[in-house]
Amino acid sequence: MTDEDFMRHAIALSRRGMAGGAGGPFGAVVVLEGRVVAEGWNQVTSTLDPTAHAEIVAIRRACTALGRFDLRGATVFTSCEPCPMCLAALYWSRCDRVVYANNRVQAAGIGFDDEFLYQEIPKPIAARSLPMQRLLAEEALEVFAEWTGKPDRVAY
Amino acid sequence: MTDEDFMRHAIALSRRGMAGGAGGPFGAVVVLEGRVVAEGWNQVTSTLDPTAHAEIVAIRRACTALGRFDLRGATVFTSCEPCPMCLAALYWSRCDRVVYANNRVQAAGIGFDDEFLYQEIPKPIAARSLPMQRLLAEEALEVFAEWTGKPDRVAY
Repeated sequence: MTDEDFMRHAIALSRRGMAGGAGGPFGAVVVLEGRVVAEGWNQVTSTLDPTAHAEIVAIRRACTALGRFDLRGATVFTSCEPCPMCLAALYWSRCDRVVYANNRVQAAGIGFDDEFLYQEIPKPIAARSLPMQRLLAEEALEVFAEWTGKPDRVAY
Repeated sequence: MTDEDFMRHAIALSRRGMAGGAGGPFGAVVVLEGRVVAEGWNQVTSTLDPTAHAEIVAIRRACTALGRFDLRGATVFTSCEPCPMCLAALYWSRCDRVVYANNRVQAAGIGFDDEFLYQEIPKPIAARSLPMQRLLAEEALEVFAEWTGKPDRVAY
């Protein structure tokens, strides 16, 4: 199996999910040691979950299949450049590599917010379109201190 | 119920989840029309899901509870400034407002990658620490064209 084979698999999932009414035209596979360990496709509208992008679904399924909370050593093939949510999820997964086909500009071309979100995320909080405010910082910080002092904490 | 009450609820969830070994010290609640419609807390290590941050869990539960794939009109209270994954998820959820307590610098101070990810996401692809490459762009673009021509597509 080559990178092209895995990408065609991801693209096939994007087409099948779209045709079946699962959600937008996006598919992904997680590959470890030359083998597909999980598939994902967009399921936002069918499962009523705005986080159910192809990559998020594939990451979750791969971790379940592997029995661990990281994807070290894995490559994620996705039919479209990950949106910032999915890109950050890929970082959190500690996967080795990402291969993509469509890009954020093309996603914007069919009505998706990926490019807009890439513009918003780096802005100072006050400059973003989503209103955010801070509250009770001191009370919350106590919990962070408790985490630091917790001897059996599991880091990730 | 005031904003302070809802934030104390989110902070209490962050402490309870941490103490119970669910994951990191993070909690969130989704509030609509003055009522908590969903709670979330970090469950990364206990559910083997690197995407199971407090906000993601809360968004998913709130959408399930409300029976829709958006959180228009809602405010999300989170015990820590959302990481880029969660921030983008909040945008995708179309919630009205976000209230947070700890910030990304404090999260970095107890060992979490939030601030690092805020630095990585805006970089050009080639400059990021996560290797990414493009493949089969033309084949994938055909699916986007099919989406545009799909008369019964559900936009989000």
